[in-house]
Amino acid sequence: MTPPPRPRSVLLLSGGLDSATAGAMARARGDELFAMSFDYGQRHHAELEAAGRVAAFLGVKRHMVMRIDLCAIGGSALTADLAVPKDRAPEGMARGIPVTYVPARNTVFLSLALGWAETLDAGTLVIGVNALDYSGYPDCRPEFLRAFEQTANMATRAGVEGGRRFEVFAPLLHMSKAQIVAEGARLGIDFSITHSCYDPPREGFHCGRCDSCLLRKKGFREAGIVDPTRYATDHGSQ
Amino acid sequence: MTPPPRPRSVLLLSGGLDSATAGAMARARGDELFAMSFDYGQRHHAELEAAGRVAAFLGVKRHMVMRIDLCAIGGSALTADLAVPKDRAPEGMARGIPVTYVPARNTVFLSLALGWAETLDAGTLVIGVNALDYSGYPDCRPEFLRAFEQTANMATRAGVEGGRRFEVFAPLLHMSKAQIVAEGARLGIDFSITHSCYDPPREGFHCGRCDSCLLRKKGFREAGIVDPTRYATDHGSQ
Repeated sequence: MTPPPRPRSVLLLSGGLDSATAGAMARARGDELFAMSFDYGQRHHAELEAAGRVAAFLGVKRHMVMRIDLCAIGGSALTADLAVPKDRAPEGMARGIPVTYVPARNTVFLSLALGWAETLDAGTLVIGVNALDYSGYPDCRPEFLRAFEQTANMATRAGVEGGRRFEVFAPLLHMSKAQIVAEGARLGIDFSITHSCYDPPREGFHCGRCDSCLLRKKGFREAGIVDPTRYATDHGSQ
Repeated sequence: MTPPPRPRSVLLLSGGLDSATAGAMARARGDELFAMSFDYGQRHHAELEAAGRVAAFLGVKRHMVMRIDLCAIGGSALTADLAVPKDRAPEGMARGIPVTYVPARNTVFLSLALGWAETLDAGTLVIGVNALDYSGYPDCRPEFLRAFEQTANMATRAGVEGGRRFEVFAPLLHMSKAQIVAEGARLGIDFSITHSCYDPPREGFHCGRCDSCLLRKKGFREAGIVDPTRYATDHGSQ
């Protein structure tokens, strides 16, 4: 068997604009992508449909959707019956850990990606986390990613038998939302296929008022790029 | 609300004799136990039934069985269609990483336990890993557990907001199987309720020939304790 021509990466793909951009950046540097999405009891499936569209756009080798019942663990507005906050100012978002934080979510997702990566002989886990806009999430910080990388190398064959080490590639870590939008646009992403809203009012629409929508809007505005998103709060205008 | 009277722990409970003993040791030191088991596409459900019996014996506050499709990830004789090795000598087991190794399994399990622990306000993850008999598994080594502990403290509210830190309690780490059997017996475990076999031939029986059965047999023999297990290889005698 000839070795794979391109280094393989497992991309954590939510269907939002961050993971789409992170994936496009990994592809641009030459990675062969395998995408992994999670059906974890989100209150809506719009994300997973978006993930499918983004996977097709990125031309991933395989897109795995893994079902995992994070609702059973509870503790978050995204998986439990808590209200998603609306209309918060950026200063409000930055304060403390938001109720939309799902306990240990990135640790769980990275662990599953790691298992798949080991089977695929992939050396990189690609994750679209961002330390600027999500400073409230403990598992979006650089020190968390470094700690996970270390654990990954202890947890696997590579850690025992030597050889290739695992790398966590988080190219958006220190970028602003505007920079992410600009980079994604440069790499040809049609952002209308992505989905960011925590609480979509109806199919095909973003609420325009949750933290995620507000950050998304702000990103396009500051990047000076037309926002193709259909917000339920719009009245015919952008 | 009054604070919980005992420190809470999440126990990873497979239903084997190791996790049963680790749980009994945590209980003996005063922990209030929450048990977590995984239905991860094992080729049989005997383990999960044993986990239910052990949870009842330990008097856990709650027993969660989480479904997670590790088969989709593949790469192991325990989840894929590979043969479980039989009749191997201990020297053979110790060499290299066994085919029964499930990629990143303990990382995935500990991550999910961590998410639940954060929701429960539990500070300890209890795991019955053993570095002596399972030296071939990268994620049963002390350096892996230390790395995970560090990740856990980075990944969670505790890591950002300060306060109580997560501890991984792995009391069997440096014990021989004989010592584990002796300790479990001392703590009153009826080992006939536990299940260790990777490849049970029929309900209520252990094959007696896979690595896990061979280690189990050896443990009872060396501890000088009667082995209550029904092995399919026995012919009426112990």
